Amino acid sequence: MINYKVPLRDIRFLIEDVFDFETHYQALPGTEEASPDVVEAIIIEAAKFSEDVLSPLYQSGDSGCTFKDGDVTTPEGFKEAYQQFIDAGWQGLSGPAEFGGQGLPSSLGIIKSELIGTANWPWAMYPGLSLGAMNTINLHGSEAQKKTYLGPLTEGTWAGTMCLTESQCGTDLGQVKTMATPNGDGSYSLSGSKIFISSGEHDLTENIIHIVLARTPDAPAGTRGISLFIVPKVGVNPDGTLADRNAVHCGSIEEKMGIHGSSTCLLNFDNAVGYLLGPLHQGLQCMFTFMNTARLGTAIQGVAAAELSYQGALPYARERRSMRALSGPRDTDKSADPLIVHGDVRRMLLTQKVIAEGGRAMLYHSAMLSDNMFAAQAKNDEDAIQLYEDRLGFMTPILKAFLTELGYEAANHGVQIYGGHGFIKEWGMEQIVRDTQIAKLYEGTTGIQALDLLGRKVLLGKLKSFNDFRSLVDQFIKSHSNKREMKPYISQLKIYMRAWRFKTWRLAYGAKRNRDLVGTASYDYLMYSGYIVMAFFWARMADAAFSKLAVGSNNEFYRAKVQSADFYFNRILPRAGAHGHMMTKNPESLMQMPEQNFSFH
Amino acid sequence: MINYKVPLRDIRFLIEDVFDFETHYQALPGTEEASPDVVEAIIIEAAKFSEDVLSPLYQSGDSGCTFKDGDVTTPEGFKEAYQQFIDAGWQGLSGPAEFGGQGLPSSLGIIKSELIGTANWPWAMYPGLSLGAMNTINLHGSEAQKKTYLGPLTEGTWAGTMCLTESQCGTDLGQVKTMATPNGDGSYSLSGSKIFISSGEHDLTENIIHIVLARTPDAPAGTRGISLFIVPKVGVNPDGTLADRNAVHCGSIEEKMGIHGSSTCLLNFDNAVGYLLGPLHQGLQCMFTFMNTARLGTAIQGVAAAELSYQGALPYARERRSMRALSGPRDTDKSADPLIVHGDVRRMLLTQKVIAEGGRAMLYHSAMLSDNMFAAQAKNDEDAIQLYEDRLGFMTPILKAFLTELGYEAANHGVQIYGGHGFIKEWGMEQIVRDTQIAKLYEGTTGIQALDLLGRKVLLGKLKSFNDFRSLVDQFIKSHSNKREMKPYISQLKIYMRAWRFKTWRLAYGAKRNRDLVGTASYDYLMYSGYIVMAFFWARMADAAFSKLAVGSNNEFYRAKVQSADFYFNRILPRAGAHGHMMTKNPESLMQMPEQNFSFH
Repeated sequence: MINYKVPLRDIRFLIEDVFDFETHYQALPGTEEASPDVVEAIIIEAAKFSEDVLSPLYQSGDSGCTFKDGDVTTPEGFKEAYQQFIDAGWQGLSGPAEFGGQGLPSSLGIIKSELIGTANWPWAMYPGLSLGAMNTINLHGSEAQKKTYLGPLTEGTWAGTMCLTESQCGTDLGQVKTMATPNGDGSYSLSGSKIFISSGEHDLTENIIHIVLARTPDAPAGTRGISLFIVPKVGVNPDGTLADRNAVHCGSIEEKMGIHGSSTCLLNFDNAVGYLLGPLHQGLQCMFTFMNTARLGTAIQGVAAAELSYQGALPYARERRSMRALSGPRDTDKSADPLIVHGDVRRMLLTQKVIAEGGRAMLYHSAMLSDNMFAAQAKNDEDAIQLYEDRLGFMTPILKAFLTELGYEAANHGVQIYGGHGFIKEWGMEQIVRDTQIAKLYEGTTGIQALDLLGRKVLLGKLKSFNDFRSLVDQFIKSHSNKREMKPYISQLKIYMRAWRFKTWRLAYGAKRNRDLVGTASYDYLMYSGYIVMAFFWARMADAAFSKLAVGSNNEFYRAKVQSADFYFNRILPRAGAHGHMMTKNPESLMQMPEQNFSFH
Repeated sequence: MINYKVPLRDIRFLIEDVFDFETHYQALPGTEEASPDVVEAIIIEAAKFSEDVLSPLYQSGDSGCTFKDGDVTTPEGFKEAYQQFIDAGWQGLSGPAEFGGQGLPSSLGIIKSELIGTANWPWAMYPGLSLGAMNTINLHGSEAQKKTYLGPLTEGTWAGTMCLTESQCGTDLGQVKTMATPNGDGSYSLSGSKIFISSGEHDLTENIIHIVLARTPDAPAGTRGISLFIVPKVGVNPDGTLADRNAVHCGSIEEKMGIHGSSTCLLNFDNAVGYLLGPLHQGLQCMFTFMNTARLGTAIQGVAAAELSYQGALPYARERRSMRALSGPRDTDKSADPLIVHGDVRRMLLTQKVIAEGGRAMLYHSAMLSDNMFAAQAKNDEDAIQLYEDRLGFMTPILKAFLTELGYEAANHGVQIYGGHGFIKEWGMEQIVRDTQIAKLYEGTTGIQALDLLGRKVLLGKLKSFNDFRSLVDQFIKSHSNKREMKPYISQLKIYMRAWRFKTWRLAYGAKRNRDLVGTASYDYLMYSGYIVMAFFWARMADAAFSKLAVGSNNEFYRAKVQSADFYFNRILPRAGAHGHMMTKNPESLMQMPEQNFSFH
């Protein structure tokens, strides 16, 4: 049983020493309220709730949801925890004040999501999906729709879902078949089946607001014929009270590898009443707003997995005794030394550690971008919106895919550190692996994120956001070139930044002559970019730690940060080399084999 | 549901075109009977049994074993399948003829194990563990013990287990506490508890022969005080009939991440009657004979996972449609192109393919070494025994750890290719991931194999077996340097062989000054070595394919082999670079952080 403790010291290091959230919040309109005191109080409270209420339900929740006669019952304790959560106003933390939210910065909401998600990811998916629905309605809904739905969603008495996938398509939403026929009164009748709907049915709230992708009659084929609809589980009267049950029902829940506490539903729409959300036939564009939030949300799962698995593995590595240290017995009075003396166990622990902490830094950086984005939207500043959309758009596929791949790796190290015991349910380590597997799949698989990064964000974007990120790193390199203790990091960063630029140009040039190159290079390009981006944040953390060490406070903590950066640069970053090598290979070695020759049975 | 089809064409390619088993068998005493006709017939029959009987029980067996009042019931159909298996004489395929075995080569037994293990790994563990017990008794037992136990074990009416692990130790067996007290009549009384005993209790056979590691009173502390004992579940009368139930009982079975069909038992010995096996206090040495077999057996699981997951993913990638090929729509009459047109999906499929086929080649090569080893043992040729023990000893940790790590990777690709559906139990893809996780843990974790390779086999062995393997590759390089179409492979092999030698020397030199280097380099050294070893076998497969292409038969099959080799050299082998880079790093970046500074809660 893993007792999650929120890594408060690490979080404070980021928001105070590395990123200076205080200055960031003061500079933005609408986030001034987030003073250091407020931020600290919120994190402390979120930590308490996560540790005391959610964490104890993590392993027991693995028993899963039950489905009966269209109803879903969540695992024992989930409902009570949810009630406590909304009673304390957590769901509306970053929600708009006019609908009952606290109007605090989006970045604080992301930190909150990290804490509750690390404590209990399957549970955290219920409020998480609601946030997606809230954001979508907030951005694309009419005033009347906002008024009807955002209050209870912000409060958390209602929940929300996103209904995209159908059995024939997940990634390729142009193949969606669910039909929305106008009723003549402004409403639509929706018919069809959606699968893999997270939180599609549950017992936590009195209503569930489904945001549904569907096709209208005579709409153009493919993605251009798709629109977005609001389909409430229970109809809503003009005064906001609940009306009749709508014709959307859960047909079954999936038996999955993990996240058993989260219901994954088949939803059947049988002439369910729905309301157009946003412009007709622009459902997919509207959806993309949600997707960026959702993908950032999913990236959190990578950090969460690494952190939780590390917290599970570290005490075991300190307590469990096996063999002797290679440099000579350490605890001669004991029959064996603790696991942590062994180099290979340290390799796995430190890998988990630098993934968790490096990933968190990447996440908080992006969270700040999202604050900037919301501020730009509030001011209707088109240039600023574009700028932050581009910056966030560049980071999103890296965070989503790279951090979930590495989080999954970290979770596997946790199992490995436990040896055979890691395979046993009781310890909770294997559950993290099972629960994290999905992070690489939903909200766009790793392969899709990779195509999004290289094909869309970098190449179609004419390297703009790529160059933008590069200049951020270059600035850092420039301003730290003379800092003696930063030399090893700066020199490595320089080399990788030069290679990244060169290889990106090479891919841009090559893709013009052979479009397949985008597909054959994309995964390696994403991983390559991820390792370099994480190196930049580890360099920044090392720099912040050195600055603190120079003034002499809490030396051990900061020294450990520098040593972690050391580990990252020496033992993780070199992986980028292999990816960089492979991504520039001729597509032929991947594309030449005729489909029928993949097997000869 | 995955319908496993034995890749007969691939297997024939290896035993005929690449390794020439016919010549190998003819040259060895005792294996002449294994004519090509016999080999073919056995493989065909094993394939039928695997496909028709075992494969259909794979997914249903995931429901698991049940435990009640000390008894274990295996999943539905397991018992009947086992009866068919022993009725056909499969258990004794490579068993000694004097005890009812067919006396066929050990390598054929390994191929059989591959087929049944790919079809249904959890089921295959029952006969697999028995083989371990049989081998141990055959090598270390008295004539009387062999006479008592080997007949029914070879027949399969009895099963066997290996009882090593206790709750306080798995890897570090010097900490074993189970006590064996002499009864004065030559027998011993065993008391203690063993955990994680695969097949420790089940309903497949009338008796179970436990091979148990235990300590005798007044034995020296640590590994030198440990002996091996035979403890039958049911006592055996001098005439071979069953006597009284022995005092060894199953206390519970573990709830695990996977291999639910295989029982993992807590066994309690309460003054159970046991018999010393092999010399007193040399239990661990005797155990190591078993361990090599068991580790080779576990390596099969890596190949099995890659093969099965590939067979699950390939039809899906051919049938499931999503998006358009980057080079332009292919199936314009359909709403989307099949997954297999996409570069990144091909990357995952081909990775699975080259792991399965490359791993199989490594396995069959080692299987031939094991034939040589058995022949040497039969002749009591000490020099030959040493030679083949060294060769096998060098390959074993690479096979066990590298192939299970890569098999696990391949299984994960299978899930990824299915997208969200990969996470759903129904399709069977996630089960392969869960079932394969254990392969990296049991019979010595990846970390332990890595230490065994670098610390024991390479460095303590003074690079002898390493140089021996190198000369095998160098010979190949030399004899193929002039073959024009082999140029790309030979030139790469040359570079890597030089680097491998150089880096090994460097580690040998560095380890003398800093023992920690062995531990900090071991994992990367193992993976590095694995990629190079697999490259050698892919080069040999390419060579065999080129030779066949030159004479013009079945071009497509051989061309696909060459293209697979191409993929391996271009897109997998470069990973070795990163490992090679990291393993020669100063241990400091791993060892410098004080234990207490790994977290600051």
